[in-house]
Amino acid sequence: MIFPILFTFFLLLSSSNAAVQDFCVADLAAPEGPAGFSCKKPASVKVNDFVFSGLGIAGNTSNIIKAAVTPAFVAQFPGVNGLGISIARLDLAVGGVVPFHTHPGASEVLIVAQGTICAGFVASDNTPYLQTLEKGDIMVFPQGLLHFQVNGGEAPALAFASFGSASPGLQILDFALFKNDLPTEVIAQTTFLDAAQIKKLKGVLGGTN
Amino acid sequence: MIFPILFTFFLLLSSSNAAVQDFCVADLAAPEGPAGFSCKKPASVKVNDFVFSGLGIAGNTSNIIKAAVTPAFVAQFPGVNGLGISIARLDLAVGGVVPFHTHPGASEVLIVAQGTICAGFVASDNTPYLQTLEKGDIMVFPQGLLHFQVNGGEAPALAFASFGSASPGLQILDFALFKNDLPTEVIAQTTFLDAAQIKKLKGVLGGTN
Amino acid sequence: MIFPILFTFFLLLSSSNAAVQDFCVADLAAPEGPAGFSCKKPASVKVNDFVFSGLGIAGNTSNIIKAAVTPAFVAQFPGVNGLGISIARLDLAVGGVVPFHTHPGASEVLIVAQGTICAGFVASDNTPYLQTLEKGDIMVFPQGLLHFQVNGGEAPALAFASFGSASPGLQILDFALFKNDLPTEVIAQTTFLDAAQIKKLKGVLGGTN
Amino acid sequence: MIFPILFTFFLLLSSSNAAVQDFCVADLAAPEGPAGFSCKKPASVKVNDFVFSGLGIAGNTSNIIKAAVTPAFVAQFPGVNGLGISIARLDLAVGGVVPFHTHPGASEVLIVAQGTICAGFVASDNTPYLQTLEKGDIMVFPQGLLHFQVNGGEAPALAFASFGSASPGLQILDFALFKNDLPTEVIAQTTFLDAAQIKKLKGVLGGTN
Amino acid sequence: MIFPILFTFFLLLSSSNAAVQDFCVADLAAPEGPAGFSCKKPASVKVNDFVFSGLGIAGNTSNIIKAAVTPAFVAQFPGVNGLGISIARLDLAVGGVVPFHTHPGASEVLIVAQGTICAGFVASDNTPYLQTLEKGDIMVFPQGLLHFQVNGGEAPALAFASFGSASPGLQILDFALFKNDLPTEVIAQTTFLDAAQIKKLKGVLGGTN
Amino acid sequence: MIFPILFTFFLLLSSSNAAVQDFCVADLAAPEGPAGFSCKKPASVKVNDFVFSGLGIAGNTSNIIKAAVTPAFVAQFPGVNGLGISIARLDLAVGGVVPFHTHPGASEVLIVAQGTICAGFVASDNTPYLQTLEKGDIMVFPQGLLHFQVNGGEAPALAFASFGSASPGLQILDFALFKNDLPTEVIAQTTFLDAAQIKKLKGVLGGTN
Repeated sequence: MIFPILFTFFLLLSSSNAAVQDFCVADLAAPEGPAGFSCKKPASVKVNDFVFSGLGIAGNTSNIIKAAVTPAFVAQFPGVNGLGISIARLDLAVGGVVPFHTHPGASEVLIVAQGTICAGFVASDNTPYLQTLEKGDIMVFPQGLLHFQVNGGEAPALAFASFGSASPGLQILDFALFKNDLPTEVIAQTTFLDAAQIKKLKGVLGGTN
Repeated sequence: MIFPILFTFFLLLSSSNAAVQDFCVADLAAPEGPAGFSCKKPASVKVNDFVFSGLGIAGNTSNIIKAAVTPAFVAQFPGVNGLGISIARLDLAVGGVVPFHTHPGASEVLIVAQGTICAGFVASDNTPYLQTLEKGDIMVFPQGLLHFQVNGGEAPALAFASFGSASPGLQILDFALFKNDLPTEVIAQTTFLDAAQIKKLKGVLGGTN
Repeated sequence: MIFPILFTFFLLLSSSNAAVQDFCVADLAAPEGPAGFSCKKPASVKVNDFVFSGLGIAGNTSNIIKAAVTPAFVAQFPGVNGLGISIARLDLAVGGVVPFHTHPGASEVLIVAQGTICAGFVASDNTPYLQTLEKGDIMVFPQGLLHFQVNGGEAPALAFASFGSASPGLQILDFALFKNDLPTEVIAQTTFLDAAQIKKLKGVLGGTN
Repeated sequence: MIFPILFTFFLLLSSSNAAVQDFCVADLAAPEGPAGFSCKKPASVKVNDFVFSGLGIAGNTSNIIKAAVTPAFVAQFPGVNGLGISIARLDLAVGGVVPFHTHPGASEVLIVAQGTICAGFVASDNTPYLQTLEKGDIMVFPQGLLHFQVNGGEAPALAFASFGSASPGLQILDFALFKNDLPTEVIAQTTFLDAAQIKKLKGVLGGTN
Repeated sequence: MIFPILFTFFLLLSSSNAAVQDFCVADLAAPEGPAGFSCKKPASVKVNDFVFSGLGIAGNTSNIIKAAVTPAFVAQFPGVNGLGISIARLDLAVGGVVPFHTHPGASEVLIVAQGTICAGFVASDNTPYLQTLEKGDIMVFPQGLLHFQVNGGEAPALAFASFGSASPGLQILDFALFKNDLPTEVIAQTTFLDAAQIKKLKGVLGGTN
Repeated sequence: MIFPILFTFFLLLSSSNAAVQDFCVADLAAPEGPAGFSCKKPASVKVNDFVFSGLGIAGNTSNIIKAAVTPAFVAQFPGVNGLGISIARLDLAVGGVVPFHTHPGASEVLIVAQGTICAGFVASDNTPYLQTLEKGDIMVFPQGLLHFQVNGGEAPALAFASFGSASPGLQILDFALFKNDLPTEVIAQTTFLDAAQIKKLKGVLGGTN
């Protein structure tokens, strides 16, 4: 009967596996580096680290843009740390809009789970690529390019956006310009917008100066 | 009136943008390299290159595993070439199963769009991580590790899997072992399975030897 | 006398070097892939492939923004193909402005060679980082974030921008919004700008719709 | 006499070198991140950090598979941290077998130092690639694909496996399936193996359920 | 009046941005890993972290080689940590020389800001690529290859070198050989230089043995 | 009897695998890009593409340095294209020397298969790391740093060097300086070597000027 010997062999061999890094669940309280957060100690990793339920809840679209974005990036979902992937939920009520924005750190694929979404991005040569997406359609937005999504139907729309990074970033154009203390004259000089237009949107978004 | 001069300036500047590589839509008929396919000529790129409708159609689950996987990898969706991202649709009828498999080239995040899915992966230290996922739940499967999905409810389930590569690969364990001409004795020697078990599954899956 | 034998040895050994890829000068007429252009045949590579003189000439700033950008990206300077680096020259006449823009593919370090430049970028949390740069000062603009440069002095300014990619890309905000046929209503809906403002800038920049 | 000045110059210049990161010897007790372990302080780095003698000792093959794998991954050989490379020793007694396994994090090149080894891998399209390797032969196993090695001769065999990662990982198929508490019914459902076969191998390898 | 609601929406959404990693300013006192230094806490990041004035000051060229290199690598300029870019200033008095050296971690683009510089690199097939560069000319030196710069004119020269890494490294050939305690006989054996030549340069540069 | 249906299902699913890129065997006659050579058509890939026998033959050490290097880089072994790994054989007769050299594109791990080898590298801060390696010992040489190997025993030595790139490159210091037409005065100026020493080695190695 030789099986017990096999067992012994495998125990020895697998001891070398202990340090293999299959994954690196983020310890959000430990140092972060350019490649992501420090890893939780292997002994404290649980299945819950790889699962996230926050996207099952519809975002609150009772706001002026009638839209909500719910991210499952590394900050919300530590299991994706270092794995080059993350996801977000997008709720668009009727008339809902996700205004022009970019993700500096990753490309995005959007999949429509419900409703109709008009989406578009603009390439560096200024060509716009626009499409009306129905349930099940997907569209890719290349990394760093300005893009938007708008509910294009008569019913609420739901979509999921997946990203090729655990931390894709999100820069919303209107926020970057109008929701801070950038002086109006600097914005006018660097966007060619009229001062009145800038001040109006600063007022809406809470910007100053 | 100075605006026409501005226009001129911008035309000159933008001429340098022509060669900027925002994206690289795959020309599937041109040479492929380690980083992906050759790019389509910019002038022939259309919005359709960035959109794919194939995931809107339910896969045919009228088969023994009562499951279907519909990929939107670079081969089906050339717009993701070089962008480090892709997606697939997973249909699981009642009792449906996606058997143990790996993606050698990327990590995966699964999002359940409908129904209940029991999913799991096994780490290098042989720890299994299993979870029952409800609608809206997500789970991450680290790159290269064995994992599976099973319909865990009384109704059909639908999920979308997103990947951190345009070409994540897919190696299904049973196929790799039993759906080819690998000699039974070699499989027995390298898996410890009984020859009778191997021959049985070769019979099912179409393997020989 | 043993030296001739050494010579022979080295000839043999170096024959294996022939295929070593130290560099990959772009053949701009050959297929391009996600990692860059195909390489010129080694036998046709000359020192001129690694040298570029186009940045020695001041750009023409006789335009409304009184500024000019002269790139030495892979399209102009094929020697940087695959090497993860490129550079551009920035001329700013008195009052000159490089309006808000992003580089989707790389971070930038700007070095002021002459004059005074007010520069700034906005982070994802909408914090603006602004600085007046004098000759010899450098500033880094992280990948994908909106930033600008303005001549802040009473004399022409000259700067060089270096990038961590041979093809960093360049998306100018005003172009992306106003220098194409994106419908005014879509822009209004996705930027909150007034239609009159949009139409005014479309008129300036040559946009339609 | 100008040489002392040269000396002075060089001292000044080299002071800037102190922070140059030529290498990053792992401090196995410090935080680990997605790119590897934290670096030892430069002042405490010794030549021994770059040298490892553990592969000079034959592994113990007195076990049922008559094989032993001795790794020099980052956990055993901290000097390779961050350098994208590692190595392992493989001893195969007569009749020895390294069963089907994958390395999720790197491709492997095997070089036979002694004896005869039958090796093979299976591609995603289920094509097996098998070869009998003699002393001095090398074979490459692409990242993440199932592969195995078997002693194919009448004498002990010795080989070295090199990997394109300091932490290539190792998932042994039989362990992942049978050496843990994965329920037999789940394994049966996701592998199509018979329950009796599963229970038999669980018994051999120490699995439960 | 609906704008206040918009404001509310945006506040909620932007809260998810807090963890977005636009940049990772180095905390030089915290652990360093293979991808760079740990990040400063976001709350303590200031605009000064992204700006560096050290390159505005001419290096001291009152030394035998009549040259000075002033780096703005991550150790001097923490803002470039993780961003894949850095820069250095090069001052060459008349007759100044930067002797043969390599950057193990990045390619370099040199731009001449003043004067004339003769520069060159040697490829793996031993072909030298030499060029006399005038003001405004740029030249690229591929990663890891030996290269040099010499003032080729009758006036001081100034150049800026940009690199595709925050930590490109710098190995100066003469230092590596002669400015340490490498035994003369080892150097002779591995370079074919005469012992007298080696001892002479050790004397100049402060080497021993 | 339901098994035939399973078979059908699997055939359908696997059809999507056809385009999965597990590997990219180099077509050395097709275009090369920054990431490597174009891939052979999948249908023409054979097991021989993944196997190489050239390292089983001792290199000819009947030369003055009594050493030979036999590479299995992508140019000799197309199967490693894009896989980030390669290997070389090193034969050192008694008294054999591999002179100072660098690999610009990868780190190296050397394993001694026979005999004694004295090896060393020099870090950027000019610290030499030297070690005498016996059979089975391994040593790592970080990317781009100058290093050497010398037979340190009374018998022939054999070693294998593995690299973290399919195309690690090889720049031999003496070749780069003395085996081409670099003018003696330029070498003298950029190395501080005496002209007589330079001319002597040019004579040995076949350099001119």
